[in-house]
Formats: sequence, C-alpha cells, structure tokens
Amino acid sequence: MKERFLDGDPDAGLAWLRADGPNSDIVLSTRIRLARNLRNFRFGTRADADDRGEVLRLTLAAADAAPSLQSGRNVTVSTLDDTERQLLLERHLVSRELIGGEGHVAPTHTALVLAPGEGLSVMVNEEDHLRLQNIVGGFRLRDAWRDVERLDDEMGQRVPYAFHPEFGYLTSCPTNVGTGLRASVLMHLPGLVLTQEIAKVLQGISQVGLTFRGLYGEGSDVVGNFFQISNQTTLGKTEEDLIDHLQRIVQQVVQYETQARSVLLRDAPTVIEDKVWRAYGLLRHARSTSFEEVMNLLSGVRLGVGLKLIENVRVQTLNRIMIFAQSAHLERAARGRLPEGDLDVRRAAFVRGVLAAEESGAANA
Amino acid sequence: MKERFLDGDPDAGLAWLRADGPNSDIVLSTRIRLARNLRNFRFGTRADADDRGEVLRLTLAAADAAPSLQSGRNVTVSTLDDTERQLLLERHLVSRELIGGEGHVAPTHTALVLAPGEGLSVMVNEEDHLRLQNIVGGFRLRDAWRDVERLDDEMGQRVPYAFHPEFGYLTSCPTNVGTGLRASVLMHLPGLVLTQEIAKVLQGISQVGLTFRGLYGEGSDVVGNFFQISNQTTLGKTEEDLIDHLQRIVQQVVQYETQARSVLLRDAPTVIEDKVWRAYGLLRHARSTSFEEVMNLLSGVRLGVGLKLIENVRVQTLNRIMIFAQSAHLERAARGRLPEGDLDVRRAAFVRGVLAAEESGAANA
Repeated sequence: MKERFLDGDPDAGLAWLRADGPNSDIVLSTRIRLARNLRNFRFGTRADADDRGEVLRLTLAAADAAPSLQSGRNVTVSTLDDTERQLLLERHLVSRELIGGEGHVAPTHTALVLAPGEGLSVMVNEEDHLRLQNIVGGFRLRDAWRDVERLDDEMGQRVPYAFHPEFGYLTSCPTNVGTGLRASVLMHLPGLVLTQEIAKVLQGISQVGLTFRGLYGEGSDVVGNFFQISNQTTLGKTEEDLIDHLQRIVQQVVQYETQARSVLLRDAPTVIEDKVWRAYGLLRHARSTSFEEVMNLLSGVRLGVGLKLIENVRVQTLNRIMIFAQSAHLERAARGRLPEGDLDVRRAAFVRGVLAAEESGAANA
Repeated sequence: MKERFLDGDPDAGLAWLRADGPNSDIVLSTRIRLARNLRNFRFGTRADADDRGEVLRLTLAAADAAPSLQSGRNVTVSTLDDTERQLLLERHLVSRELIGGEGHVAPTHTALVLAPGEGLSVMVNEEDHLRLQNIVGGFRLRDAWRDVERLDDEMGQRVPYAFHPEFGYLTSCPTNVGTGLRASVLMHLPGLVLTQEIAKVLQGISQVGLTFRGLYGEGSDVVGNFFQISNQTTLGKTEEDLIDHLQRIVQQVVQYETQARSVLLRDAPTVIEDKVWRAYGLLRHARSTSFEEVMNLLSGVRLGVGLKLIENVRVQTLNRIMIFAQSAHLERAARGRLPEGDLDVRRAAFVRGVLAAEESGAANA
C-alpha cells in the first residue's frame, strides 16, 4: 500500500464518473460517511500530536489488515504538495479540514486510505479520528451503505471505537453523535431551477429533516444547479431508517425534476433546445473559461443530454469534465502551478479537446 | 428583360459577397449612387401619377437601349409581394422609399432595373426620378465610379436630365443638388470599437465633410460594428474630387482599424481569441437567434477570420450569412411568411448549416 497516490491510476476514487448507476443523469453520485473516534484518545482540536500520531498508527495497522482495504493505497497527506492535496479535495476524497489551507503546511498525522475498486476510503485525523466514506455512481444509497458498513465492522474489530450505550458513537462535533452517519446524494436539478419550483422543493426537504448544500459541502455555493441533499440528524434513528428516509425523499425529488423537465420541453421546447446548445457551443469553442462558468455550461449540456436534445455527448464525459477541468487537475496535467489566466486557457482547451474527441467518436460510431 | 426577379439567379445583385476586392476583410462593399431627374416632369412627392407613369416609360425605354443594361432584368416593384420587396431591400438594391412600407401596397410606377454582372442598377421613381447605383465588393471606389459614370452617360443620352448650368444636376432634396453623388463604403470596424477609438475616428470623419450611418442607411442603428461611411456634400466639387477625398479618408480608417486590431492582438490575445471563438460557438450551435444577434456574432467571427484566429471560415461565407440570414431571405427559402419565433429558429438552422458545411469543406480540403 505504499505506492504514490495517482501513479498508475489517474482515475483513483472516481469510479462514480462512469455514470452507470440508476438515475445517473439526475443523481451523479451517492455518498455515505461514518464519523468514528478511538477510545482513550482526545478528539478533534483537543487531540495533541501524541494522540494523533497514535491514532494514525493504530488506524493504518487496522486498515492494513481490513479485507475491504486490501490492495488499496494510503496517502500521508502531509507529504503531498499543494496541488496534490487540492486534487484530492476536488475529487471529494478528502475534506478541507483534512488537508489544511492552501499554501499552508498540511496538518500532521493525517492520511487517506483508499480501497481498490469503487469508492471506499478512510480519512484519518480529520475532525474525527476516522471518517469512513463511500462514493458510488448514481442513486445507490443501499449499495453505498452495504460496503461502508462492512468496512466499519472490519475497522471496529481492530481499533476500539468510542461508543456510548445510550448515545451511540461519540464524535468531535455533537451534531454527528449517534450513528455518525451522513448520507448524501449529489443531484442535478436544472428543471426545478428553470421552472422556479426549486425553492419549494428545498423548503420541503428541510421540513423532513434533510438539508442541502453546494458541490463542495457545507457553506459552499450552489453552482450549475448541482445540489447535495443529505440527512441533517444522526441521533435517535437507526442507520437503515436514515437511509430509507433519504431514499424516499430523493426518489420524490427525482420525480419532481423529471416532471419539471417534461414541462419545460412541452411549454418551451425551442427555448430549452437553444439554451442547451448555446451552452454546448460555448464549451466547445471558448478559449478561456473559469471553472464556475464550466459548471454552469455543463449544467445546460447535461440537461440537453438528459432530454435527448444533445445526442453525441455521454453523461460520463460531462462527469469527467466536472472533475478534470478543476484547477488542481489541470495543474497536475501541466505538471506545475499555473497562473490564473493560464489556468482558464488550459481549462478551455481541455474541455474543447474532450468534446471534440466525443464528437469525432460519435461521428465514427 | 421580362424574367421574374431572382428566378434562375438567386444571387442577383450580390456579386460583392465574393469578398475578392481589396481590403475586403475590413471593407465589405463600395457603393456609388447618382440622383437624376427628368426635365419637364415634377420631382418627388409633387409628381403625380401621369408624371411618374411617363418617367417610368421613358426610363425603361432608355434602359432597354443602354449598353450597360443589356441582358439585365427589370422589376416592376408594385407587382412584387411583401417578401420580394423586402428581399430587395435586404440586398440594398432598393430603398425603403422605393418599395413602400411593409404590408402596404408598393408605390405605383416604381421599378428596379438591374444590369447583368457585378452590381449596377437603376431605381425608377424613388425620391428622385432615377437613382443610378453601383455596388461592388471590397474597397473599390474608382471601379464603382467608372461603371456608374458610363451608365449615367448612356442614360443621359436617352432621357433629358434636369441640369442647371450653375448648380449642376437638380434633385428632389436640395442636399443632393450638384453632382447628385453619394459614394459610400461599408466598413467593419470592431478593432476601433473594442479599443474605444471609434468615437474619435467618427468625429474626425464628420470634420472632413463625411458622415456615417448603420447598415440600412440614414437613421439606421450601427449593428455588429458595421459602419457606412459616405460623403456629406454633393455640391461645389467634382465627382472625382468627392471620390478621391473619400478614398483618402477611408484608406486612413482602414489603417487605423488594422492598427487597432494589432494592438488588441498584442495586448489581449486571449481575450480576443476567446471572444471570437465564443461568437463562432454560438453561431455554430444556437437553435434560435435574431438577425441582430447574428450580426453581432458575425462581427466577432469576422474579426477572428481577419486576425487569422479562425481559419476554417471564409469572409465570403460570412458575407453570405449577412444577407441570407435576413427575414425575407429566410421566408423566400421557406416559400412563405413565417411567424417571428419560427424565423429565429430557421435563421439559426440556416447559419448552423452554412458553418457546418464550411467546417466539413475545410476538413476535406
């Protein structure tokens, strides 16, 4: 497990990009994370270097033996440079908390252990000692839960979890106490945004104990009509209840979105067709573009692909652009830091290249 | 000369589109018109039906015999439907005055006589009894003058022009008295607009007795950075002086525009490249677009072609789009009137088709 992250596997942690899961035109990915801490060590910001070092040692030893993590890889975050750390963040494999601020030294004793295969991973010494995470493509809460639960069992047999018979798993922040579970679903909801029904839907979501955020978690803006919908509470219910509840609500939102798209196509077909193709035209030809603009244009193209107005682009290609057009990914491809202007130019060139390849692939198919 | 206009020659009057004249990336076309009236008939709005009928009869007889108009065609404007009249206007072959308002009956006794070949024509019973006109491609004032002067001689030998030994040719509006000449050059000046030097240049133009207007003559807005520059006065100078003066000034404006483009390319290459390719991307992919938007986007693409940033599109193709993406041209192609929304959809489809053909032509070349 000592290989350097990404060497030999440029798509590490990105299996969900394949877009082969259910409802993957509307639900990009499903993520479940479990917050866990080790008994006998201080939590979070109270943990000193000794605590953290020991937690890391014990966790890596357990991970080394856990069947789900065999043939995986682990990454000591403090050994990574800015771009590499940023790249993990752009893949949603680590949190901002785990990698530290840009230009700062990464927190010591932090690591990411990444399982082979789909999207299972463990962050060590984040806000909690352990964050077990699973990201899978499409709308697949139960699949994601099954694998992360197995990993949780495997780890729990090897390190002593802090568990309270009444409260459940103990965590650094009280909001995570109980199951320590956050299940979230990344949805693309342009139909509800364009029909202006989104506010009502989001209000409904919060009334049933769910919450939403932008693409990069808590406090991040919604860009490109991408919403992460997740459970708010973790206490007082079983993991299965939390997941089933989210499953039902997201299923409803998928239906609302599908209906909204039908309405748009029925009431304003020309406007929608024009909108999605203009987005395509700009992505396909612009020479300089910010990531935020790419996300907004991808939203249009994705809607067009979902409505079968655009037929020569695959959803998986749009997913790839979402990840690989981000700054650290572009810098990694360029093998060095890039000034802002150069980044925007390279981003546009990358997007153009991907879409041109898709066009000629479609032409040859 | 009795063939129906456009039957068998869909490009009638559009030789200038070929863009093979000098400076044709900046100067689209050169136009010279001469205002003439027949002695013994009342002018303009004072002319009654008898005057107009007789002027038409005499003029058509003269045109029939004039060598420059042999094998040409004439069009009795009042026999045309709205779309056909509008189509002549869109080609700048007639004035709004000649064809009357849209939805109204065309003025009686008005005609257009069109020479074969490049761009020579005669409007009959416009503001003046005769308007001799020549449109040629590129920056070619002397060529345009040579041919219209010959036609003027040929007509003047066959109908009695109203001419005053002191004032010169007499016209309906005093501003045209003298030579009756208006020479104008249709220029594309995006460089001067983007560098914000255009106001200074236009001010300079008016200080030397020239004037500018938009694409459709007096009172029309400037769209897509296309400016018509022409002489203001017609009295007290010879035709050659007026033309030489315009020639010198336009030559200077061409230089200013060329310099402005160099500055843009030097100081903001990415911004310009991005701008021109975005315009291309929208023209190439939009599904609905107004003519005004097409003109603005064509301006961007034309700049890109001029700067060799876009290499797979020919100037003549952009010229064709300018003419054939206009409403009456689209309606003629559709063989019927189209509602506004349909027009915008057909316009986008037309533009897309032309650019797609150009792309595949370039790919095959």
